[in-house]
Amino acid sequence: MEKKVSLSNLVAFNNQVDYCVGTGRMGLALQKEYQEQLKLVQDEIGFSHIRGHGLFSDDMAIFQEYKEHWEDTETKIEYNFTYLDLVMDAYRDLGLKPFLELGFMPKKLASGDQTIFYWRGNVTPPKSYEAWCDLVVATLKHLCERYGTEEVVTWPIEVWNEPNLPGFWKGADMQEYFKLFKETFCAIKALDERFKVGGPAICGVKDELWIDEFMKFISSEGLKVDFITRHHYTTKQHDWKGHYTYAELEDPEFRFNNLHSTREIVDRYEAYRGLPIHITEFNTSYSPDCVIHDTNLNAAYLAHHLSRLGDDNASYSYWTFGDIFEEKGVPFTPFHGGFGMVANRCIPKPTFYTFAFYKKLKGGQCVFRDDDMILVKGDDGVLRGIAWNFCEKAEDRKVKDLGVTVFAPDGNYSMICQTVDETTCNPLKLWHDLGEPSHLSEEQVKLLRAAAVPAITSENLEAKVGLKFKLNVKENGVIYFEIRERVLTADRGYVCPLI
Amino acid sequence: MEKKVSLSNLVAFNNQVDYCVGTGRMGLALQKEYQEQLKLVQDEIGFSHIRGHGLFSDDMAIFQEYKEHWEDTETKIEYNFTYLDLVMDAYRDLGLKPFLELGFMPKKLASGDQTIFYWRGNVTPPKSYEAWCDLVVATLKHLCERYGTEEVVTWPIEVWNEPNLPGFWKGADMQEYFKLFKETFCAIKALDERFKVGGPAICGVKDELWIDEFMKFISSEGLKVDFITRHHYTTKQHDWKGHYTYAELEDPEFRFNNLHSTREIVDRYEAYRGLPIHITEFNTSYSPDCVIHDTNLNAAYLAHHLSRLGDDNASYSYWTFGDIFEEKGVPFTPFHGGFGMVANRCIPKPTFYTFAFYKKLKGGQCVFRDDDMILVKGDDGVLRGIAWNFCEKAEDRKVKDLGVTVFAPDGNYSMICQTVDETTCNPLKLWHDLGEPSHLSEEQVKLLRAAAVPAITSENLEAKVGLKFKLNVKENGVIYFEIRERVLTADRGYVCPLI
Amino acid sequence: MEKKVSLSNLVAFNNQVDYCVGTGRMGLALQKEYQEQLKLVQDEIGFSHIRGHGLFSDDMAIFQEYKEHWEDTETKIEYNFTYLDLVMDAYRDLGLKPFLELGFMPKKLASGDQTIFYWRGNVTPPKSYEAWCDLVVATLKHLCERYGTEEVVTWPIEVWNEPNLPGFWKGADMQEYFKLFKETFCAIKALDERFKVGGPAICGVKDELWIDEFMKFISSEGLKVDFITRHHYTTKQHDWKGHYTYAELEDPEFRFNNLHSTREIVDRYEAYRGLPIHITEFNTSYSPDCVIHDTNLNAAYLAHHLSRLGDDNASYSYWTFGDIFEEKGVPFTPFHGGFGMVANRCIPKPTFYTFAFYKKLKGGQCVFRDDDMILVKGDDGVLRGIAWNFCEKAEDRKVKDLGVTVFAPDGNYSMICQTVDETTCNPLKLWHDLGEPSHLSEEQVKLLRAAAVPAITSENLEAKVGLKFKLNVKENGVIYFEIRERVLTADRGYVCPLI
Amino acid sequence: MEKKVSLSNLVAFNNQVDYCVGTGRMGLALQKEYQEQLKLVQDEIGFSHIRGHGLFSDDMAIFQEYKEHWEDTETKIEYNFTYLDLVMDAYRDLGLKPFLELGFMPKKLASGDQTIFYWRGNVTPPKSYEAWCDLVVATLKHLCERYGTEEVVTWPIEVWNEPNLPGFWKGADMQEYFKLFKETFCAIKALDERFKVGGPAICGVKDELWIDEFMKFISSEGLKVDFITRHHYTTKQHDWKGHYTYAELEDPEFRFNNLHSTREIVDRYEAYRGLPIHITEFNTSYSPDCVIHDTNLNAAYLAHHLSRLGDDNASYSYWTFGDIFEEKGVPFTPFHGGFGMVANRCIPKPTFYTFAFYKKLKGGQCVFRDDDMILVKGDDGVLRGIAWNFCEKAEDRKVKDLGVTVFAPDGNYSMICQTVDETTCNPLKLWHDLGEPSHLSEEQVKLLRAAAVPAITSENLEAKVGLKFKLNVKENGVIYFEIRERVLTADRGYVCPLI
Repeated sequence: MEKKVSLSNLVAFNNQVDYCVGTGRMGLALQKEYQEQLKLVQDEIGFSHIRGHGLFSDDMAIFQEYKEHWEDTETKIEYNFTYLDLVMDAYRDLGLKPFLELGFMPKKLASGDQTIFYWRGNVTPPKSYEAWCDLVVATLKHLCERYGTEEVVTWPIEVWNEPNLPGFWKGADMQEYFKLFKETFCAIKALDERFKVGGPAICGVKDELWIDEFMKFISSEGLKVDFITRHHYTTKQHDWKGHYTYAELEDPEFRFNNLHSTREIVDRYEAYRGLPIHITEFNTSYSPDCVIHDTNLNAAYLAHHLSRLGDDNASYSYWTFGDIFEEKGVPFTPFHGGFGMVANRCIPKPTFYTFAFYKKLKGGQCVFRDDDMILVKGDDGVLRGIAWNFCEKAEDRKVKDLGVTVFAPDGNYSMICQTVDETTCNPLKLWHDLGEPSHLSEEQVKLLRAAAVPAITSENLEAKVGLKFKLNVKENGVIYFEIRERVLTADRGYVCPLI
Repeated sequence: MEKKVSLSNLVAFNNQVDYCVGTGRMGLALQKEYQEQLKLVQDEIGFSHIRGHGLFSDDMAIFQEYKEHWEDTETKIEYNFTYLDLVMDAYRDLGLKPFLELGFMPKKLASGDQTIFYWRGNVTPPKSYEAWCDLVVATLKHLCERYGTEEVVTWPIEVWNEPNLPGFWKGADMQEYFKLFKETFCAIKALDERFKVGGPAICGVKDELWIDEFMKFISSEGLKVDFITRHHYTTKQHDWKGHYTYAELEDPEFRFNNLHSTREIVDRYEAYRGLPIHITEFNTSYSPDCVIHDTNLNAAYLAHHLSRLGDDNASYSYWTFGDIFEEKGVPFTPFHGGFGMVANRCIPKPTFYTFAFYKKLKGGQCVFRDDDMILVKGDDGVLRGIAWNFCEKAEDRKVKDLGVTVFAPDGNYSMICQTVDETTCNPLKLWHDLGEPSHLSEEQVKLLRAAAVPAITSENLEAKVGLKFKLNVKENGVIYFEIRERVLTADRGYVCPLI
Repeated sequence: MEKKVSLSNLVAFNNQVDYCVGTGRMGLALQKEYQEQLKLVQDEIGFSHIRGHGLFSDDMAIFQEYKEHWEDTETKIEYNFTYLDLVMDAYRDLGLKPFLELGFMPKKLASGDQTIFYWRGNVTPPKSYEAWCDLVVATLKHLCERYGTEEVVTWPIEVWNEPNLPGFWKGADMQEYFKLFKETFCAIKALDERFKVGGPAICGVKDELWIDEFMKFISSEGLKVDFITRHHYTTKQHDWKGHYTYAELEDPEFRFNNLHSTREIVDRYEAYRGLPIHITEFNTSYSPDCVIHDTNLNAAYLAHHLSRLGDDNASYSYWTFGDIFEEKGVPFTPFHGGFGMVANRCIPKPTFYTFAFYKKLKGGQCVFRDDDMILVKGDDGVLRGIAWNFCEKAEDRKVKDLGVTVFAPDGNYSMICQTVDETTCNPLKLWHDLGEPSHLSEEQVKLLRAAAVPAITSENLEAKVGLKFKLNVKENGVIYFEIRERVLTADRGYVCPLI
Repeated sequence: MEKKVSLSNLVAFNNQVDYCVGTGRMGLALQKEYQEQLKLVQDEIGFSHIRGHGLFSDDMAIFQEYKEHWEDTETKIEYNFTYLDLVMDAYRDLGLKPFLELGFMPKKLASGDQTIFYWRGNVTPPKSYEAWCDLVVATLKHLCERYGTEEVVTWPIEVWNEPNLPGFWKGADMQEYFKLFKETFCAIKALDERFKVGGPAICGVKDELWIDEFMKFISSEGLKVDFITRHHYTTKQHDWKGHYTYAELEDPEFRFNNLHSTREIVDRYEAYRGLPIHITEFNTSYSPDCVIHDTNLNAAYLAHHLSRLGDDNASYSYWTFGDIFEEKGVPFTPFHGGFGMVANRCIPKPTFYTFAFYKKLKGGQCVFRDDDMILVKGDDGVLRGIAWNFCEKAEDRKVKDLGVTVFAPDGNYSMICQTVDETTCNPLKLWHDLGEPSHLSEEQVKLLRAAAVPAITSENLEAKVGLKFKLNVKENGVIYFEIRERVLTADRGYVCPLI
């Protein structure tokens, strides 16, 4: 596979790898291990925003009722922002803004009993839309007081999550959702027009219908929404066994087409043409116990994905940064197919590095992109690229040997590679070889972390009528490489003793 | 190369890898980077003792003279222990005891002007032996007050350094050294008999003569010295070019024989038979700018060495832990052939891991040792071994394929390997490929540290009439491996998705 | 108030200040702020054990049911120790052993729906005692595997909490509790006889009856329990207003008498005479929103208490170390009358120092104790004492001027005092003066922490026929003082410029 | 002493408290304790620049000579920037830019042997001005490469130190200094005109003559210097005893007049009128062993000083931040009259807080200033002030009772005070009471640090036709106070239990 790259041939590439990342429900952000995993992610990748469920769920304790006197029959409402402050302070200290998802329903404000997840998020409409809007507005006001209005109005706000699924919104009732959206939207804009509000936060079930109806609704109501949101998962039918889920990946082109049709539907509405579409969740499988998430295959498949997701979307938020997550209960083992880039006890999974590598491409100009590789030239003149090789099925497994010629000036260059593949950075395999222990000793944690790093290699290249190099991408490997001019500044008398 | 190991066949192996380590002069211990390098070494290896020059040199500011009044002609003596406390506190905080080397001479106490090194350690006898002994005794008393006598009497004390070289002791005057030794020895023992005192701290020049004469001297004087000390370097004639030194390694057997003959000389003196001999310095080259120190060759050569040095010696102290060192001046570049296991800016060199690996063998019982490999069985039943392959010359370079059969019970085992070789853990090469920069950016430091780690791999082994495995030790590689019984405790429904 | 102290007159004083401390429910130990508060407490006080509710409550997720196949009607049981490990690891890392309280009931194992607290601990008996005992045994086995049996058998185990209250144990059913106790006790002892198991963990309601009946029961059943447990609170009838509780303190002698009668009841049973009695909870008020907890009055009242609690008890565990606590919901403000020694955002309350001061008395021999002051002579010859002055009512407020004469040898002494009183260390007042903000800014947190430290003062004392000194203990003040011989070691020429 | 403050009456006040701070010689910046002290200072005060001697002294190892071959007679020059990088990186990591002082002379570049200080800075002119300029230019070029030219050209550069003293510049030879200045100035400006270069860095000996001659010189030569520098010390004749110095303070007005006359001299030269004058060193005594530095008197005297030093000067750099300092040798004890704001082992002295308090006044508008107090109104509406009371002689000791009326709007205010005086924050006294130990135990260090903090108190104020409050400033006390509107936001039902 020979590739030829001209440095003057610019290629479109909208790299939003670090715009937003997903998280388990907000209340989990109080946990120490959660914050340790998030710190690891921020230190190495550094996202700008974070989005998750459960802002208004009962463990956050925001919505409260009380009686003035014991004998009263009427209750009054008050708000408790103690935990909200702890969570938002923690995000701020890690350089993150929230991408606020408004939901789920506080039990005492809910019209029904239906819940979702092990942690029982109530998914029914409010019994009073007025009280709901009061809650939203009071929360935003409090945030403005604490963090400054100028800051808070820059935090995107999304109304609810996946209302197109009956598990997430009672009956998947579209008209009720539109009501919720409009009431909420108008209440927020009345507080401050500068807030950015969007929806409908749907996933891929009847998604085209929902998007179209949502566009019609906001058009007819004249709601100037600030962005559209949807989700994106890429596995086929799942199987279950015990605590775990098994699934196959879909052809990525099939899923990209789905995203593109959302773009087209939105653009059909003239008043909203070009409106930003945020993918507020994406991953391979949508199940928090699907074994694929821990693999090098996941990392390599997503390396390809990240080269394309910006084509039709303003951002795309990986679901999720870490494995402190309770939707199907508390995990029994450190590697359990959780969504996270980081396994419990702070062990980076291969996918962690896919994101870390794309982060390194930020700020440059893309000069090459195909289904094997992407290459970006930085303002500092350094070439930075990523190559990948996902092969899910046994019969497709083979090494990709890429030969690249970049038409760069003659001279001496150094190339540094960071390789993540099944041999070099595969903590899942090490854990398996250790016997799949549920309860890691300190020594095992240390070993797994030490094993969960890319292999770093380097070489000297001599460019003569083009800079030629080879990349041998092993099965399910992802290679990050950077190439820069090299000036040898050997010290007086020094001869490097490498043979 | 097939090796067969019976677990019941115990092999002698005196593993003192962590007894003591060398350091640049004491005054450098005040530096922040020095302490950072030492912390890294202690965190990963954890030595018990540390030994270096310069306790009484002027930058430590211990020995002071003053006049009571301006017009006085006579001076008085006082001691300043401010810096000594800072240094000893730092050692204590890192879990280290000093192996005290008494020297060099404070300028104001010296009989002459001769100095050694860029930092000018005075190497002449004291102008007053009484004042010298007062200084030694006052220092020990101060240490006892601060750290407790019970503790301080356990710190070994060595009188001077390499008096058999005229650079280190004026004229290499043997009789003058014996005088120094006796005066010092008697003064210390008069303070507290429990102090452990030894010498003559010689290096390999006329070493057999010196040892023999020293034994004669202490015999005739009836000095019950507590141990004998000598040094051990293993390179041939050096060449110089600019700031750097180049040398070839000697056949290790030649050097082991030299150590053995010291043992034999000492044992000839009946009253001292079996007296502990400490190698208070060892390394390949004795030059702090010899390029070999930074290489994988150094690591592999010493892996072999560490399997043997305990045969005739009570301990052996690698010279030195880090590269904050000024004997030939301040280094110009981070990789400059310094003695350290750690390069400046806290980058571990390959040799760092040779020591880290031998530390892991502590506490077990050796079951195999030859010129390729050592294997130890721990109290916890885990097998831990090290294999190496040093090949200095181009014509000797080849991979060693070791096949090992351990007669262990049938069953399932997991083997974890940590590999340091020219490909996997070679920060010198990466630095070279970067252009040999003198002044590392933060990003380069981070990259070099990330590259200076062993590759970790694992595999499952099935023992059936013996546990068989292969070790492919690449050129100048060192592999640490551990093998333990493996019980698969797969969680309900879990099938590991590795193909 | 003149006091005369003879150093040879030894006084009984059982100082168990650091044996155990209370905590909010176990699941809260996952939180970051919880661990920060606990670290602060451990750094400055350093308890040995920690005890709290909720080991088996649902948020710990230990007890799990599942069906093998979707269509099955029967469920099976499995245990999840993921969060238990996180909690116990955190304790171990902070130097703490758990004082295990077995409870409350997992919902799926419960025979009823009755719950207690905002966080809904189920307080009904198990629907199957066999399944309950299996849960207890499996948990202990898991702990033994992870932390070593030799270690885990030293952790005290208490069966349930306050079964004499109908809120904590359905119907306050004594016979049902005795059944629970016996089943649990026997199951644990069958696992390993070395486990230490006790009860009945009652608080002060019908306490004498319960203790007596419990003693009868274990006598008749021949259960060799290892210790007796009870609680101890010292406020009168409470009033409520909004989120808060108000109460008056009781005369301490009244409460000490209550403790003494428990001792007497136990000692009436010959086979159990002298059996250790642990106070597994104590505080002034038993309400987690009682404003007294945040005051200097609380600190001074407890300073007196700590001088006496060991008289009849083997230990006494302050309820609780910190204010991450949810029994009555999430607190609305940092100072809210929580039980903790530490307010939220890691601000020590005055009571924190009462414990810190008593910790300093450990290891010495008491030479004086009355209702104003206690004095202990350490093995190092240093005298360490605490004086206090609690005055709850306005009419009782006055400074205590204590004059003390210690019959110590003539000479020069230095006395160092640490003072906590309403003026010197009163973060509650500062917070009030700031306007009682619910949501502290970083700057306010920093200021409050800086204000929440004792004032440190020193003076020189000259002993001549007795060492005389004065202590002016202000209203609700606690003063820690230490007195040691002073040898002036002024440096050459130094004259201290203090007038 | 009644003071009336109108908030609309603006008062000139040039607060440059944090522009620059002094340091012991550059080579000491390698030390760990040095960096710890500096970190403490930066965390609490946060200076922008740091200035010290010894950039080119031999321990920094920059200037090096070598021979190409052993037999050569000619030497060549090379530069070693290893330590310079370590020092500058450390400064940058602490948020500091250097205020570069060019000096002293590398031994091998010096024309003579004269040195100053225990650490022997060579104070003779270069033997070659060309080589000197090469050294300066090479150093600046290196800094530009490492830290960016845009950044480095903002670092002020001062030529030499105190050339008007024969100890600091051989013979105090004015013409030779002017030569040095011109050569250096021209070499730097030739490299980049944007560099800011100034002198003559004189202290108060013949200072008016020197300034005048320097102005004449630069006028006649047409040198567009960027700023003028001088030093400022305020003690009378010193006495010596043993290791220590004793001195009395001068009337501050006398010293302010001296500064003012420098201003006038400079302004006489039309081309330079208004040229910034930087005080690149100031303190009470100029001796690093003068006991006054450790006292509360020093803190209070300088509190007054800081209210005035900006009147005639662009900045004023306290000499020095910490006590790692070797000009008169290594200190024997932690409190030894060193220049530092921080004593060794990281114990803040009272003067530390004088600077910390003035830092809090930054960014506001002065509304009152006299010889007792200064008051500033911040952009946030908060009033921040400092009051002081220095009284050196026994007969002058008395408390100052200040009564202040600020014409602020009616309402409720909270006032928070931080008090540093001989009782509340006097680590020197505590150390004295401990017996003046030379060698602090860890426990003593902890105690001294805990005692070296301001007392924090607060009160509520009710303004009614003016806000009235009292400040009782004890002998040698400094009080920082801030006053802000207070809105009580008591939580539902909360009544603060303070009597």
